[in-house]
This record gives sequence, structure tokens and C-alpha cells, in this order.
Amino acid sequence: MYPIEQHKPYPKNQWYVAAIRNEISREMFERRILDEPIVFYRTEAGDPVALAALCPHRLYPLRFGKLLGDTVVCGYHGYKFDCSGRCTAIPAQEAVPARFATKSYPVVDRWELTWIWMGDPELADPTKIPPIERIGLGAEQWRADVGCNTPLKARYSILVDNLMDLSHISYSHEKTLGNNDFIAATPPIMSNDDQSIRVLRKFPNTKVEGPLAFFFPDIAGTTVESYLSSDYYGPCLVDAVGPAVITEEGVDRQFHFIHFITPETPTTTHYFNAISRNFRADDDEFSAMMLAQMARVIAEDVTVLEEIEPHIERYGSTKTELSCQADAGAIRVRRTLASQIAGEK
Amino acid sequence: MYPIEQHKPYPKNQWYVAAIRNEISREMFERRILDEPIVFYRTEAGDPVALAALCPHRLYPLRFGKLLGDTVVCGYHGYKFDCSGRCTAIPAQEAVPARFATKSYPVVDRWELTWIWMGDPELADPTKIPPIERIGLGAEQWRADVGCNTPLKARYSILVDNLMDLSHISYSHEKTLGNNDFIAATPPIMSNDDQSIRVLRKFPNTKVEGPLAFFFPDIAGTTVESYLSSDYYGPCLVDAVGPAVITEEGVDRQFHFIHFITPETPTTTHYFNAISRNFRADDDEFSAMMLAQMARVIAEDVTVLEEIEPHIERYGSTKTELSCQADAGAIRVRRTLASQIAGEK
Amino acid sequence: MYPIEQHKPYPKNQWYVAAIRNEISREMFERRILDEPIVFYRTEAGDPVALAALCPHRLYPLRFGKLLGDTVVCGYHGYKFDCSGRCTAIPAQEAVPARFATKSYPVVDRWELTWIWMGDPELADPTKIPPIERIGLGAEQWRADVGCNTPLKARYSILVDNLMDLSHISYSHEKTLGNNDFIAATPPIMSNDDQSIRVLRKFPNTKVEGPLAFFFPDIAGTTVESYLSSDYYGPCLVDAVGPAVITEEGVDRQFHFIHFITPETPTTTHYFNAISRNFRADDDEFSAMMLAQMARVIAEDVTVLEEIEPHIERYGSTKTELSCQADAGAIRVRRTLASQIAGEK
Ligand code: FES
Ligand code: FES
Ligand code: FES
Repeated sequence: MYPIEQHKPYPKNQWYVAAIRNEISREMFERRILDEPIVFYRTEAGDPVALAALCPHRLYPLRFGKLLGDTVVCGYHGYKFDCSGRCTAIPAQEAVPARFATKSYPVVDRWELTWIWMGDPELADPTKIPPIERIGLGAEQWRADVGCNTPLKARYSILVDNLMDLSHISYSHEKTLGNNDFIAATPPIMSNDDQSIRVLRKFPNTKVEGPLAFFFPDIAGTTVESYLSSDYYGPCLVDAVGPAVITEEGVDRQFHFIHFITPETPTTTHYFNAISRNFRADDDEFSAMMLAQMARVIAEDVTVLEEIEPHIERYGSTKTELSCQADAGAIRVRRTLASQIAGEK
Repeated sequence: MYPIEQHKPYPKNQWYVAAIRNEISREMFERRILDEPIVFYRTEAGDPVALAALCPHRLYPLRFGKLLGDTVVCGYHGYKFDCSGRCTAIPAQEAVPARFATKSYPVVDRWELTWIWMGDPELADPTKIPPIERIGLGAEQWRADVGCNTPLKARYSILVDNLMDLSHISYSHEKTLGNNDFIAATPPIMSNDDQSIRVLRKFPNTKVEGPLAFFFPDIAGTTVESYLSSDYYGPCLVDAVGPAVITEEGVDRQFHFIHFITPETPTTTHYFNAISRNFRADDDEFSAMMLAQMARVIAEDVTVLEEIEPHIERYGSTKTELSCQADAGAIRVRRTLASQIAGEK
Repeated sequence: MYPIEQHKPYPKNQWYVAAIRNEISREMFERRILDEPIVFYRTEAGDPVALAALCPHRLYPLRFGKLLGDTVVCGYHGYKFDCSGRCTAIPAQEAVPARFATKSYPVVDRWELTWIWMGDPELADPTKIPPIERIGLGAEQWRADVGCNTPLKARYSILVDNLMDLSHISYSHEKTLGNNDFIAATPPIMSNDDQSIRVLRKFPNTKVEGPLAFFFPDIAGTTVESYLSSDYYGPCLVDAVGPAVITEEGVDRQFHFIHFITPETPTTTHYFNAISRNFRADDDEFSAMMLAQMARVIAEDVTVLEEIEPHIERYGSTKTELSCQADAGAIRVRRTLASQIAGEK
């Protein structure tokens, strides 16, 4: 099915954002990730724990039970599980067979986010978490702010498509971002480095005025090279950079809209976001305005993608896909993703 | 499945009412017909246009885009389509391959209605639109009023059944139309002409009193031949005539409840209606009362059919159909319809 | 599928509670039982009638028609059916073929309940109704009160499971019944008699204090043998006894929470209940309090089971069931039930 085969819709040996860090607390909560229901909590020491959410006994969700220290007590018949998922006690019974366990998932806090590894736990290497410092999250002299978690009733792959073809800004975001016809009118340039697949649009000789002057008031009236790009770091992370300018002095100023994408089910998605920048680092009010702006932009994308989703569900497999030159980046990403999925197991 | 095989539930080479004429304007709107999503608008010259509703690029519904003159601009990436469905422009791209087109459907305004041809466009001959003048729509010396568009959550074929067996008036419409036991008690007579299949009930020597006197106050107290009939002109149109009387002077006065039936999906229907008559042509108040009456009667039929629909969905294919003599007209219609469907492609 | 194969999920040659007796009146109502839609009413003489709910003509639900004496008149085309389901009249038609009948089901009033036989009517022997007198319903010197009908969006078999393993009282009902850790901590004893499968927990040397003293204030402070049991009389009836005590004088005082379980569909259930006791027979206020208490307890079980149901639907067939010693009663019951189902036809 367009755009990704649906019998294996996502890679599993991959870190995904499970939650904004402070969503996980001493109160258990459940979230479905890659179609697996997972219960999250923190130990008394503050470490995140992720267990398969359903009691292996009679499938009652563990979140309705209690935490006794770091131990989960099921709310139906009182089985106890430690934070590795091992069953440590069954009422009125001496021995607990080892197979009475629930699965546990590797989880790691990194920056303001908690990451989860859904595939083979042996392969769960935290160094494989995407290089978020490079895009300003937790980096020196950058300002970064975590946004929110938006439920998206559409498959993650069309969100990736959306982010890899920013020509849609000229049409879908006209109400929030204004008339930006020049974006769609500019052919994109593709490139790769070892970390990301990049789609770039350059606008040489741009006058700093209008929206650009709002971002960079100190250089209003000068002429810069401006650009807009999308970097794909995996299905879990797409970084949209823009506005970004190279000033007359050659300084590269970048505003990043960062998108963390976690499939919830084959057709729904947890969509987390953040912003970062390497200028006006102390300007809290600017951060607040940009987070609000991002929320409006995301709401527009959610509307578009949720309109499309049922049609992909229904017509995707029978339709011949028509693509234009501006889709080249999205298509390169999709091929990469498809081969990552094919390479698993 | 009872009552019509579900893998090809409706004929396509057939005009259907797509909309009440003034529903289609310079504001695009979408409607599903024969399970195909279609976007409608009028050109600046006022002609109706019907295009496949989803952008062939990434399936975004075209109705969320804009009209620039007669051209549709998709709201996601800005592709442009003319009113024949041809793609005329893609941003940042010189050439537009011919296959970047969306389907267009033949549409024709006729009387207060806009008709659509869902099958082979080569066969879309407007002279095949049912002879609505013959039943008073747009005819000299008749009065005709368009009603409304009622969404029906039931398959169109059981609505046709309903209209071809008017014995149900005695039971389903007792609250609105009063006690009419004589209808169900009168055996129907079937006949065909080249245009329609007719089921007729005659009531000779009827005194014009009660409801009849309300329709025909000028002949109250006389004795007439009264009758009630259903004419099937195709799945798109059933004309129920009644009350109708042949006066002592031999004048045939007819009141028509006209039903335009357009399958939305295999199990839901767009149900349009109109009324016409060849008496009291200038009586606006009478028209208003009869439209209100028709709305109440239709609401009752909708209730009955929506109660039945899930049971047909579930039990229709396993059930042996039991039919009585009063079903003969409905069954003749169903055979005609089944052979029309079988004859396509 | 765990816990019972879903292609034949319930026995049919079995009495089930169809309704609380006074739910069935001269006003027709419809209820789905074992996935068959059934319309209920009483004859003028007061006898319960159960007919297949859909008119055999065009599947209109009979409940929308009228009762003329003991005869049902369909609300669509006026066919008449007597209380054996025979079609006795079709409008405008002399003869009525015998096959124009709707199915009728054996129904019997017993105590405050109306029972229905869903299987082969030849086998519908009222003496096979479970021995409800033995558990105090309609018995001398007992007090019995009928409770209510709770819709349960979960399959009946997990409700049977729930009732055969009362260790869950210690966990699921902590809020309403207080801390009862001693229940889960006590291993159950299984036994059978010719009528029921029993799971029993004994608590010797129990001081009558706290909740027990509330039940038995006249023996507060004494020491008794207390017990708690579940008796399975078939999928239609599980009797939970407790608190129950054998006093110092050897008197056996029992409080019964009685559960009537009627599958509505393969995954939903009609859950009726009653209470009975052989002490404080005239204490109306105590009855009222206990019915209220039962309603709260049932609401908790409903919550648990409705949380579990979608997971059984989804994971039941692929999961290896893990069971502990406390499940032995539930598993014995399940085997009995499975062999009862397998033995049918
Ligand atoms: S379902 Fe968790 S202990 Fe039984
Ligand atoms: S979806 Fe219409 S232009 Fe892309
Ligand atoms: S549906 Fe009952 S008489 Fe026709």
C-alpha cells in the first residue's frame, strides 16, 4: 500500500520518543507504541520503566494496579512485577514460574524526552539515538524548548512525506505563515550526509523585512542568503530549519522546528515537537510566541493529514502514485525507510 | 444478498440526481455518489462541474483548495486542475504529464435538479434523463416544488421496494396520513409502458370527503374514482401518485410525490424529493403544507428503512425471502434492475 | 480463542434468564440473546411470549408494530402473527402459507425471573432450570431480593472466570469491600456435587467483628468458622456465598450474591443479579443496603471486564494462557462448559 507496505509498516530496531520526559512519573500511564500497549512509570530513584501494559495472567491493564516501591501490583488478582517485568509474587502460592513475566523495554532519558527501543533489546544502543545536540537540543549557546504531544489520526509515513516537501507551506499554511509562494516556486536541492537526508531550498539576496525582520530585527534592512531545509534523521526525527539566514558577516542563524514522530498504530501517530535556535537565546517571550506558532502550524498539518488518511486506507493500494519533482526528497526518504524495514529480521 | 447482489449493487450507465440545482455554487462541496467521492462547483459562466474529489497527487480533497476562475487549486501543494480535470500547473515545474489528471463526470442541470452520469462518459446522453416533464416538473399548467435532500442510512433498493408497495401507507404512515386500511386491503394492478413500471390501486365510487375534500374542496361531496399508483422510471426516480381522482366530469386530477434516489454507498442513499400537481397551481400555501407533509412522511420511511438496513446487512444473504401478492410490483422492478446491472460491462 | 472457542461460544440447550419478570409486559420490547434478536411481551392472560424479533417479510422489527389482543401486527405492511409465531393474516390476500412464520422460543416465569430456552424446543424441560430454591430464591424462611440487569460489554466467559476466582475481591473490590487480603491469601478447595462445581475458602476461628459484625450483630464478639464460596450451576448461574458463618451453635448463616449470566452476543452479556439470605429475613433496610452494595461491586467488576474484553478480542487467540493455583476452579468450569458446547449437535 502507498506509501509504505502495511504488513510491516515501521522499523522496530530504532529509538523512538516515547514521551516528553515529565509525562512519566510515579503515576503509571499507558501508551501504545508501534501497536504495542506499554505502561510507563518511574522508579523511586527516578529512572523510567516501560513494561508490556497487560498483565500476563488475565490481560488486565497494569496501570489500574498500584506501585509498591518499584513493584507493580496488578489490580485484578494481585500478581507482582518488578521493573524488569519479572513476576515476583502470586497470592497464596509459593513458587512463581519464570514464564510469568511481562516484557520490558529499554528506555532512556535524553534531553527533555524519554526514548524507547521497540526491537531486539540486545541491539538497544543509546548511542544510536539521533544526534539531537547537533540540532541544538541540550547544546551550548543554543536555546531549545520542548513543545507538546499531538495525537495524529494518520499514519506516520505521510507526516514524514509532509515534512520532506516543504512546498506545502505555500498552500497549507497560508493562513498562519502568510503568503509564501516563493517556497513552492523554488526547486529543492537534495543532499545526504552520514546522519541525514537533506532537502534544501535557497533564496539568495533576500531582503530582511516582513516576517524575516521579526525573527532578526537587529539586521533588518540588510540583504542575506536565506534558506529552508528538512533533515531526515530516521522515521523518529525530522528537523525543519527555517527561517535561516547567512548574514552579510557570514553568520549562520538557524531556527529549527523539530518533529519527533512515533507510530502509535499502523494508522495513527504520536507527534512530539520542539524548537531550537542559535540566536536570541535568552528571549523567553520569543520562545513562547514561537511555540504557539508551531502549535498552530501543527494543527493545520494534522487537519490535512487526517483528511488524507482515510483515503490512503481506502485507495492507497489501488492507486498509481503520481509524483512531481518536489517529491524527490520524500521519495528518497521513503526508499531508505523501506529498505530499513526490509532489513529487519 | 437480498434484495440485490452486493458486489455490483447499482447500475452506472444511468443519470442520477447529484444535487438540488442551487446546492452547487461557486463554493466547492463534496458528495459521495455510487461510492465515488465527487467535488462539485459551478464555473463563472454558471455551468455545473463534477470532478473526482481527491487530488491525484497525494489524495487531499480538492474542496479544501481554492477556485481561481474555473480552475481548482489544490490546498496541499498547489497543483491546478481545469474543469475537465486536466492538471494545468505544478509549482516549480515546467511540464505537466497528461496522466496528472482527475476524472470528470458529465453533469446537466434539468429543472431544479443537477443530474450526473456515473458510467461510461461516451454513453452520457441527456435525452436519457427520465421524462420528468410528463410528471409535471417544468410542465405547462402544472405546479411543481422541489423538496429537500434527506440522508438515508439504508441501501437504495429497499427504498425502491418501499415505494413500489404502497400498502405500507396503511401501517407506517398511520400517524401522519391517518387510518387508510382500504389501501392495504386493495389488491394492486400491475402494468408497464415504455417508460415505467406501474403498480396501481383503484378505489371506484369514492365520496370526496375527509382528506380528499381537503385536496379537492371544490368537488367535496361528489363521487369520483380515486386511485393511487407508483411508477418506476429507473433506480433514480419513482413517482408516487395520490391522491388522484377522476371527477364526475372525467377530469384526471393528480398529486405527485416524486422520489429521486441516488445511491451514496452500497448501504446509504441520497434521497431527494419534489411534488407536483395539475390543480390549484397558484396555491402557494397548499404547496408549503404539502412539502411539510412530505417531509413528515419521508421521516417515517427513513425510520423504517434505517431500522431494517442493519438486519439486511446481517441476515439478508442467509434468509429465504418471503413475499406476498402485494410485493409483485417491487419484485418486477427488482428483476428489471438486476438485469440492467447484469447488462453493464 | 482464550478462554472459549469463538465459533461456538455458548451452549444453546440451556435455560437462561431472559429478563426480570416485570420487564416483560403488554408493551413489546426487544433483547438480543445468544446473538438472536427476540421480541418479548405478555399475553392478555399474563403469559410471557418470545418471538424472533424481525418480521419474516422484510425484516422490520416487530416491536414497532402493535399488539391486538395476543396478536402482533407488523408496523410495516400489517402481517399478523399469533403468539406461537404463526402468520395468521396478510392484507389483501386470502391464504397465508405456513412458511410465513416467525420462530417462537419457550419461556417460563420462575421466581422473579423469566427464563428462555434458546436451543432445540423439544428439549426445553422446565425442570432443567437451575435449582434456585436451594439457594433461597422463593424458599421458605429465606429472604430474597431481585437486583437489576446490568449491560456488560464483555464476553460472558470472563465474567464466569471472575466469579469462580474470588481472590479478586482482595484487589478489585478494595474500595467497596475494604481490605480483604486474607481472601487471596487463602488457597481454595474444589468440590463437585451433582448440581454445581464449588470453589470454597474456609477461615476457621474467625472473630465476629468489623464487617462480619455488621452482618451478624447478634453474635458480635463470638468466634465462628467463616467461609466464602462460588457455585457454578451452568453458564446461566453462579452463586457466590459470603459472608457465611457457622456459629458456635453450629447454625449455618449464609448471604448469597447470585449472578445470572446471559450472553447477548459473542462479546457482550446481560448480567442479572439477586441476593438471598437465611437470616434477618424481615429486615428491609438491610436488603436495600445490600442491593446498593451489590450494585457498587458489580460496577467494579464491569469496569475490570470491559477493560479486559478488547484485549482478549485482540490477543486472546495468540497468547499462551498463564494460570495459577487459584484459577483451578475457573479452569474446571471452563472445561465443563467447553464439553457442554462440544456435545451440542
Ligand atoms: S490479571 Fe493481573 S493478576 Fe490476574
Ligand atoms: S495533494 Fe494536491 S497538490 Fe499535492
Ligand atoms: S415487514 Fe412486516 S409485514 Fe412487511
